[in-house]
Amino acid sequence: MGFWKSLFSGSDSSSPQKIAETDIYNAESQAEGKPATRTDLMRDRPNINSRIFFSTERDIDLYELEELCDAVGWSRRPLRKVKKAIQHSFLVISMWEQRGTQRRLIGFSRATSDHAFNATIWDVVVHPDFQGKGLGKALMRHIIKKLRSEDISNITLFADPQVVEFYRNLGFISDPEGIKGMFWYPD
Amino acid sequence: MGFWKSLFSGSDSSSPQKIAETDIYNAESQAEGKPATRTDLMRDRPNINSRIFFSTERDIDLYELEELCDAVGWSRRPLRKVKKAIQHSFLVISMWEQRGTQRRLIGFSRATSDHAFNATIWDVVVHPDFQGKGLGKALMRHIIKKLRSEDISNITLFADPQVVEFYRNLGFISDPEGIKGMFWYPD
Repeated sequence: MGFWKSLFSGSDSSSPQKIAETDIYNAESQAEGKPATRTDLMRDRPNINSRIFFSTERDIDLYELEELCDAVGWSRRPLRKVKKAIQHSFLVISMWEQRGTQRRLIGFSRATSDHAFNATIWDVVVHPDFQGKGLGKALMRHIIKKLRSEDISNITLFADPQVVEFYRNLGFISDPEGIKGMFWYPD
Repeated sequence: MGFWKSLFSGSDSSSPQKIAETDIYNAESQAEGKPATRTDLMRDRPNINSRIFFSTERDIDLYELEELCDAVGWSRRPLRKVKKAIQHSFLVISMWEQRGTQRRLIGFSRATSDHAFNATIWDVVVHPDFQGKGLGKALMRHIIKKLRSEDISNITLFADPQVVEFYRNLGFISDPEGIKGMFWYPD
């Protein structure tokens, strides 16, 4: 707890980001019964003057986001459309590493919704340098918590085969009661 | 063709609905190579002074919509939330039967979207009195056409087991490349 408190404390009031320190802490500690250790989180990041936080701000540098998506091998998309998609998503969560005054975008996710019943999570990405540290889980728990706090009861997503297990561990069920995810393809 | 032209013509300028006559006609005729016959559509509706049209208006009588959903056995939902969901859907399509000055809500569907890449279709319903006449297909083709016209490339939905085949016939593919639809359930 001491670690998490110090890691996620000291939010800089000059930062435009909305710090979500307690969310990260709570998600990890409640779900796993213990906080992650510094080693888990910062294995290859020796500089302890680094902290990681979430933001719901939408004024993300689109080139920085493109760089993040490039890093995981996603196909490039027109930035004009990415901007529109961010504007019209119900929820946008970005994850940042801060070292001194330098911020780096290390994760991203967003959800579309009808603001009432359903939300669908899209574009979940964590930079490869920060994978395997529980940050993807923290990001997902944060987005789930936000959606639940908005009274959204049906949280859905479409998972590539290699991440089905990741989502299953977070409480997602594939094809519940035989419900199938379907995609329309032009003839 | 003559039948469809007459069935879907005569839009009443006093109607608050946006008539989408050509959409129904085109969807049916283009996809199946022939228009539906009057028998297909109006099998048990002997009054030929009836016409069916789509609308994208959102000021739907919520009690009428509830009645439609009751008719297919859906669980009731708080009307306050239904109203909010309709307001915040990207696209809302209702299907109406008009006889003289009387209109009856006989179908409904809506889609959430990021207005750029993805759309997810929810709440597809056709009144049991009007099922088996190709109207569900027409409704779906209409919504697909609208979404495509908005440059949405990824049209998705979650299908109950008994309607997977219905959507497959419309060009939807389940679990393409192993992508799984997943739903989050609280612990």
